[in-house]
Amino acid sequence: MRFSCGRCGKSYPIDGLAYKCSCGGLFTLRKEGKESVDLPVSLGETNTPLLRKEIYGARVYFKMDHQMPTGSFKDRGSVVLVNKLKEMGIGEVVEDSSGNAGASIAAYCAAAGIKCHIYVPESTPAAKLKQISAYGADIVKVPGPRENAAKAAQEAAGKTYYASHVYNPLFFEGTKSMAYETYVQMGFPDTVFVPAGNGTMLIGAYIGFKELGFLPRLIAVQSENCCPLYNKFYDLPDAEPKPTIAEGIAIAHPPRLEEMASAIRESGGSVMTVSDDEIRAANETLRHMGIYVEDTSAVVVAGARRHFKNGINNMRKVVLPLTGSGLKT
Amino acid sequence: MRFSCGRCGKSYPIDGLAYKCSCGGLFTLRKEGKESVDLPVSLGETNTPLLRKEIYGARVYFKMDHQMPTGSFKDRGSVVLVNKLKEMGIGEVVEDSSGNAGASIAAYCAAAGIKCHIYVPESTPAAKLKQISAYGADIVKVPGPRENAAKAAQEAAGKTYYASHVYNPLFFEGTKSMAYETYVQMGFPDTVFVPAGNGTMLIGAYIGFKELGFLPRLIAVQSENCCPLYNKFYDLPDAEPKPTIAEGIAIAHPPRLEEMASAIRESGGSVMTVSDDEIRAANETLRHMGIYVEDTSAVVVAGARRHFKNGINNMRKVVLPLTGSGLKT
Ligand SMILES: [Zn+2]
Ligand SMILES: [Zn+2]
Repeated sequence: MRFSCGRCGKSYPIDGLAYKCSCGGLFTLRKEGKESVDLPVSLGETNTPLLRKEIYGARVYFKMDHQMPTGSFKDRGSVVLVNKLKEMGIGEVVEDSSGNAGASIAAYCAAAGIKCHIYVPESTPAAKLKQISAYGADIVKVPGPRENAAKAAQEAAGKTYYASHVYNPLFFEGTKSMAYETYVQMGFPDTVFVPAGNGTMLIGAYIGFKELGFLPRLIAVQSENCCPLYNKFYDLPDAEPKPTIAEGIAIAHPPRLEEMASAIRESGGSVMTVSDDEIRAANETLRHMGIYVEDTSAVVVAGARRHFKNGINNMRKVVLPLTGSGLKT
Repeated sequence: MRFSCGRCGKSYPIDGLAYKCSCGGLFTLRKEGKESVDLPVSLGETNTPLLRKEIYGARVYFKMDHQMPTGSFKDRGSVVLVNKLKEMGIGEVVEDSSGNAGASIAAYCAAAGIKCHIYVPESTPAAKLKQISAYGADIVKVPGPRENAAKAAQEAAGKTYYASHVYNPLFFEGTKSMAYETYVQMGFPDTVFVPAGNGTMLIGAYIGFKELGFLPRLIAVQSENCCPLYNKFYDLPDAEPKPTIAEGIAIAHPPRLEEMASAIRESGGSVMTVSDDEIRAANETLRHMGIYVEDTSAVVVAGARRHFKNGINNMRKVVLPLTGSGLKT
């Protein structure tokens, strides 16, 4: 395996300190032959359930990724990335996160015996900080917006491996497993709604379904208060982001924005935004069905609702991935 | 299926309002022929992972029941009980709980469309109340100790079905599945450590392994601050319970105390107590392995540690069930 620049094609080793190309391009993963990742480091991953339910008069399939070991789908990425790090003999990493990715990387690093430093915005909710530090990770609080934590981690990445859930293609090599599992459980869906922040779920789904040979329509859902992908996709002017209850996808400048937009375009999909009120209502629908997720996870339900209301009936096999546990809040 | 009094043998219907015998005896389940419970009401139960790890120099198998849908093993009992209630057409229930059982019953009742009232002690932690009410359950706060909530629910049970995780044998018909899954995953263990409060895990494991034909040594672990089973088993005087961080098993007067003691005796097992400091240390061991559970779940690890320290080497296949998610705290 090598990292390969998505812009100029230059090749890099996967155990090096470079986390993007010298030309500024982002990395993709290039496999040589039949390479795979062994997974001796484990916290008990299972195929997450695919629950068939009816909401708003339509049949949907919930992919219960909030039931993963640390309570979020990020574990799909972490288990693959951290096992590869362990195999390569990397003993210390940095990562930046406002919550779930940090907790997930911290947990798998603990299981692997890898020292990790998680850079977080000072404003990170206490419950998420508690989980990250429970695993014994070193927390570095960075004042200012989310980007500042990323910048601080990237500076540290000059000396220590950057176990990034955004830049490191090995992470997406993990999140793609959602597509494989879903296919085994129901065959190919025609439509997958995905919450879109940094695109870890979106790009993972894209890679996985592409490898399987059929790409369903990917509908990305963002908060109307922070929707750079929506603006990009429909050529709208950039807007100043406002706070939203969907904090897990409130990413003002996602580094892989181009990649996200082109994945959606290729799938014949679209981008939509929902309001905090719609998200709240969608989450109540879920909870009153016995399903307890974060507000960020409810955006896909809010998005699907809008579609179903509009009487769209070319959706027969709709997957709604639920990304994070309600117990985290 | 019928309920049958464990003391006098009198038989009762399972859909009636009686939750114990008129003689005061507690119910067991009596099956006639090959009856089973269908499970159309589901929140996505999976076989929980069995993780082989080394702790304190010994090999153990963690049964990851804290990864169940509502974050606790109580879902094993709720899914069976609530499906049976649904099948019998029961539309409203009462239950009392200081936390995990209440959340679990509330979630499955939401999924089944059954109205539920959860009686809780006024001192129930806010995070647990939040989860219970998220599912749309009606919460009834009862002042005074844990027993008062039970008494209030039992009064209400004169008019409304009592979906009790302690009295109702259909609940244990569910918790026994831990034994079945473990057997499929590793064969028969020789030793199973269980946290002991009301005995839902202990009695479930006992029933399941008995049905399978081999009963491993059951070692019940209690907090030294609240250990009625320990006192009963070793014929010690009753002691006034003190607060403990293992709040999920701080039950001063478990109704099924006799049944718990006799299950352990039959298994050739024992009862032990651990201190809050030992529980804290055991939980830190788990967390630094990437496993995030409640303090109540760490008691079995504290108990196992004490055994391993004493150089006991007749334990080759040791199961440690982890009962509740750390995200709940
Ligand atoms: Zn380049
Ligand atoms: Zn009787």
